[in-house]
Order: sequence, then structure tokens, then C-alpha cells
Amino acid sequence: MSLLAVGTVAFDTIETPFGRAERILGGSATYITLAARFLTDDVRLNAVVGRDFPDSYVELLRERGINLDGLVHDNSGDSFFWSGRYHYDLNQRDTLATHLNVLATFEPDLPASYRDSRVVCLGNLDPTVQMQVLDQVENPDLVVLDTMNYWIENTPEPLAEVLRRVDVLAINDAEARELSGEPNLVKAAKVIRAMGPQTLIIKKGEHGALLFTGDTVFSAPAYPLEDIQDPTGAGDTFLGGFAGYLARTAEIDAEAFKRSVVLGSALASFVVEAFGPERLLSLTPEQVDDRVAAFHRLSAIPEGLLLAGGTVEST
Amino acid sequence: MSLLAVGTVAFDTIETPFGRAERILGGSATYITLAARFLTDDVRLNAVVGRDFPDSYVELLRERGINLDGLVHDNSGDSFFWSGRYHYDLNQRDTLATHLNVLATFEPDLPASYRDSRVVCLGNLDPTVQMQVLDQVENPDLVVLDTMNYWIENTPEPLAEVLRRVDVLAINDAEARELSGEPNLVKAAKVIRAMGPQTLIIKKGEHGALLFTGDTVFSAPAYPLEDIQDPTGAGDTFLGGFAGYLARTAEIDAEAFKRSVVLGSALASFVVEAFGPERLLSLTPEQVDDRVAAFHRLSAIPEGLLLAGGTVEST
Repeated sequence: MSLLAVGTVAFDTIETPFGRAERILGGSATYITLAARFLTDDVRLNAVVGRDFPDSYVELLRERGINLDGLVHDNSGDSFFWSGRYHYDLNQRDTLATHLNVLATFEPDLPASYRDSRVVCLGNLDPTVQMQVLDQVENPDLVVLDTMNYWIENTPEPLAEVLRRVDVLAINDAEARELSGEPNLVKAAKVIRAMGPQTLIIKKGEHGALLFTGDTVFSAPAYPLEDIQDPTGAGDTFLGGFAGYLARTAEIDAEAFKRSVVLGSALASFVVEAFGPERLLSLTPEQVDDRVAAFHRLSAIPEGLLLAGGTVEST
Repeated sequence: MSLLAVGTVAFDTIETPFGRAERILGGSATYITLAARFLTDDVRLNAVVGRDFPDSYVELLRERGINLDGLVHDNSGDSFFWSGRYHYDLNQRDTLATHLNVLATFEPDLPASYRDSRVVCLGNLDPTVQMQVLDQVENPDLVVLDTMNYWIENTPEPLAEVLRRVDVLAINDAEARELSGEPNLVKAAKVIRAMGPQTLIIKKGEHGALLFTGDTVFSAPAYPLEDIQDPTGAGDTFLGGFAGYLARTAEIDAEAFKRSVVLGSALASFVVEAFGPERLLSLTPEQVDDRVAAFHRLSAIPEGLLLAGGTVEST
């Protein structure tokens, strides 16, 4: 199935304890599409770039099969720019600069060929813009949305409005606590799902991810990585792998959601191994398969004797 | 097989946002034995209590089949007393009082009948005392040890000495980072295993637990609990369930370790549902089995198509 990704395509300047990268390709839609293209052939990107965006980056995305009919070139300004510095423990980061540039006036106007997109993946953006996208897609099978603390704090009403129209919300644990006002994640999930999304993913970084869908709770581990160079884009890569798997699969049910969380986690575990999206560019489908197999080994509980007699089935 | 638990038997006064309990039964050896008795019939306790320790608490342990030949009554003083207050998020707590009392002069002198214990489970105690226990056990199959930041900071040399003699170390993530000086848990595990323990468990509370043994890494989820009343004893209960399973199982290998981590996690998920060890007292083997089955459902990854063709085996 087709997957439409809307988000940012940007320049990032990143510092981590392990190095620094200046004005490299970044942005949520970049990571989402570079991950999703491993899972489905029909990946459509809608985002805006400025006059400073080089043809080489456009080519890099096109070469990987990403449909760029919706990549808007706005020559009135520069591309969105973000700069951040990660601390030694990598869970903490300081934003050093955020220049919206052409993103400040971006109003999505989807190409006609995008309007029949089946899976819509809305990367972190102003919820009003996310809503404008939804207004232009005809009858999607699934809408997946990411957001962040900035929108939770500053635009709660447009966020509440868009949440009523999404099927899946994917946020991190701090955002889930903030959005719900509940420190306990199980309670937080109930509160958030009552806001609209029937399915909720809580991303916990090095602690994996939790999926709540129907009456099912699923806990995916994080891949134990010894060498993390740069966490930038991990959440967006997760989203691209997650939504990409759902675009690939025939039937969207609890089992498909579980597997999509693992695909998202596997792809995210690669992206942090190098700066920016670099690792996603060199990755092969075989390597993704191997990592998915490693997730199975990492979390499979062996069968064993029950205390009250008999054996438990390995499910 | 027999399991020897050495640790504290104590009074705890506990405050959480959900209530308060005054001078209730507590202590590491209490929780370890009350958990382990679900898994093996031969649970031996070695600890000291003071003149204030009531017969009713002794009876409570005895009724549950725990061998108390090694429960020393020291009438020269009162029992170990701990008091703490948990914050709203329950991951933070303040210690309000620690009165060592008779624990200050405790020197373990194992009953002759304990010296052939097969699994030795050393709860959090002065590493010098933990060593004295090991000197008195003849040829155990497995030694499991818990420790905490106090001993890591204040008695690093005795701790290093006892670590050379243990098979399994079970500590939390903050302690693993402190003991190793490594923020990355995979690197931390390498450093710690080079200190002696071939097998390492890193307990991550609401994020589950990691097992490192041989070339195997295993990630166990935490059971998603909506209602946590009191986290006291969760780590010790984990330890009792973990070591208890290994005393129950015929062959101690990676698969047994994985399953023992799940048993420990399942038992720990019960104890936090009520104050002190209360929930462990009312628990049935059938309820433990049900929760273990829930852990299977929580973490089982469905089989699915590989990206490069074929299907991945569910392991």
C-alpha cells in the first residue's frame, strides 16, 4: 500500500560526545521515508525545503525510490535548520538553535496523486498543519501521528482536534505523561486513548516501546547497543518502520501492530549507530532481517513448567 | 534443590502516595524467602532479629514452609528498622531512618544443616558478611548476590572480593552504571562481568530486566501495572523468584536463566500491588502461573515475512 509521510526535511547540526556533524540532511520526513522505503515501494513525501537545499540531497532521496512529487521548493527563504548537543548519557539533549525559515509559512498542498494515500504518517509538526494534510487525503486506511512536548504545551486545542482523527499516536514516555497528566504509563495510555487514537505506542528509548491496541499490551525490547553515535532521528525512523510495515501488511490487526513495532525498533537501532541518516543509506534488507531475528532471540521466553502443574505454551 | 537466603529480617515503616504502613514485616531475606517458597520446598533463612521481633512474624514465615533454623534471636537489642517515603512517581524515595540495631554486630554462623545448600542467595548486606556466609557453604552449585550503592561507594574492596566468588550478580541500572563507571549498560555489563560474575541481571524497575549470560542477552518486560501501592521489596522478591527457579530447575543454562528472570519479574509484579509482603502471603501458584503466561503474551513477537524473502522463525 501507499504511505504518505509529512514532516520536515531539514539541515541538522549535531554534537554528541562522539563527534560533530555540520548541516547534514535531517528532518522527520527524511527519516520516516528513508526507513519506510525498506517496507513498501510506494513512499510519498510531502515537505518544504528552501533555496539552500542542494540537489545532491534531493537526488539521495530520489535514488532510494522516494516519491518527491510533494517536495515543495520555496525559494523565498532557507530550509528548516535544527542544532542540538547531546549529553554523555544521550538521553539528555540541549537544543542550540531552531530556525523555522520556510517551514514558518508552510501550508501543505498535496499533489493530486497523493490524495489516495492509504497510510498517512504525520511526523512531528504544528497540529494545525497535520490537520490540513488530513483534510486533503481522501479515505486513508490508517493515520499515524507523532507530536512533541512543544505542541502539548503550546497548542493543546489543535492537538486535541487532530488526535480525534488519528488511529495511532506514537510518542515518548515523557510526552505520554505530560499529555495525560498521569505518571503511571498504563493509566496514561487509557487517558490518551480516550482522546481519540485507538492505538498508542509509547517509545521509551533504550527501554524499548509499549504498544496498547484493543485489549492487547505488547512490550518490545530495545536492541542492546554498545556503540551509539547519535540518537537524532531514532523516533522518526521508528515511525517510518512502524508505518511502513503497516503499509506492507495485508491485514492491520494486533499481531500486525506488534510486528510493526519490532520493525520500527529494528530500524531505529541502526540509525543511532552513525551520525544523521547515514546508516539508513547503507543498510540492506538482509541486515534488517537479521536484526529482527535478533529481537526475537532477545525477547523470547522459553517454555517451562508451571508451578501448579503442566507446561506453559510458548506463544 | 535447597536454597539458602541470607539478608535482613526487619521492621519497615513505609509511606507512599497511596498510604502508610508502620513497623510491618520487611527485610531482604523476608522477601527472598517468601518468593522462593513458591518454587522450591527447601528454603533456608539465615538472618538476625532482636528482642522486639514478635512470635507472630516468626510463625508467619514458618507456616509458609521456610526453614528458620538459621534465624538468630539476639536479645541484646532491637531488630533492624528501616523507614522510607516514596515520591509520586515511585522511582524516587527518601530514606527517613535506618537503625541497624542487632544487625550491626551480626556475624553469620550457619547451622550445620545449612552448609550443604545448593543455591546461595545473598541479599543486600555488608559484603564482608556476604563473604563470611560463602566461607561456610561447602560447595554450592550457584551463588547469587545483590548489593547496593552504599556498598559500591563505601566498601569497594570487600565488594570486589566477594564479586570474584559469585556466579550471578543482580543489581539495578543505576548501580550497574556506578559499579562499572559506564553509562551504557551493554558496556557496563562487560566491565562488571570481568569482575567475577559470569551472569549479570540488570533490574530496571518499570522497564523490566536485562540478563547477560554467556553470549546471550535477554530482555524481560515489566508487567504493566496500573495500581502500584508500594515498591518496597520488589528487588528482593525478584531475587527470590529468580534464585528459586534456579533451585527448582534441573539444568542451569541460558534458557533456565531466562525463565528465572521471568519468574522473578512475575513475583515482583505482585508484591508492589500491596504494602510490604502482604501480597506474597495471599498469592497462589495458579496466580503466579497466570502472570507468567501474561509475560509470554506481553513479549511474544509474531512471526512475519522477511524483507529479503521467506519467514522468520518464532523462537
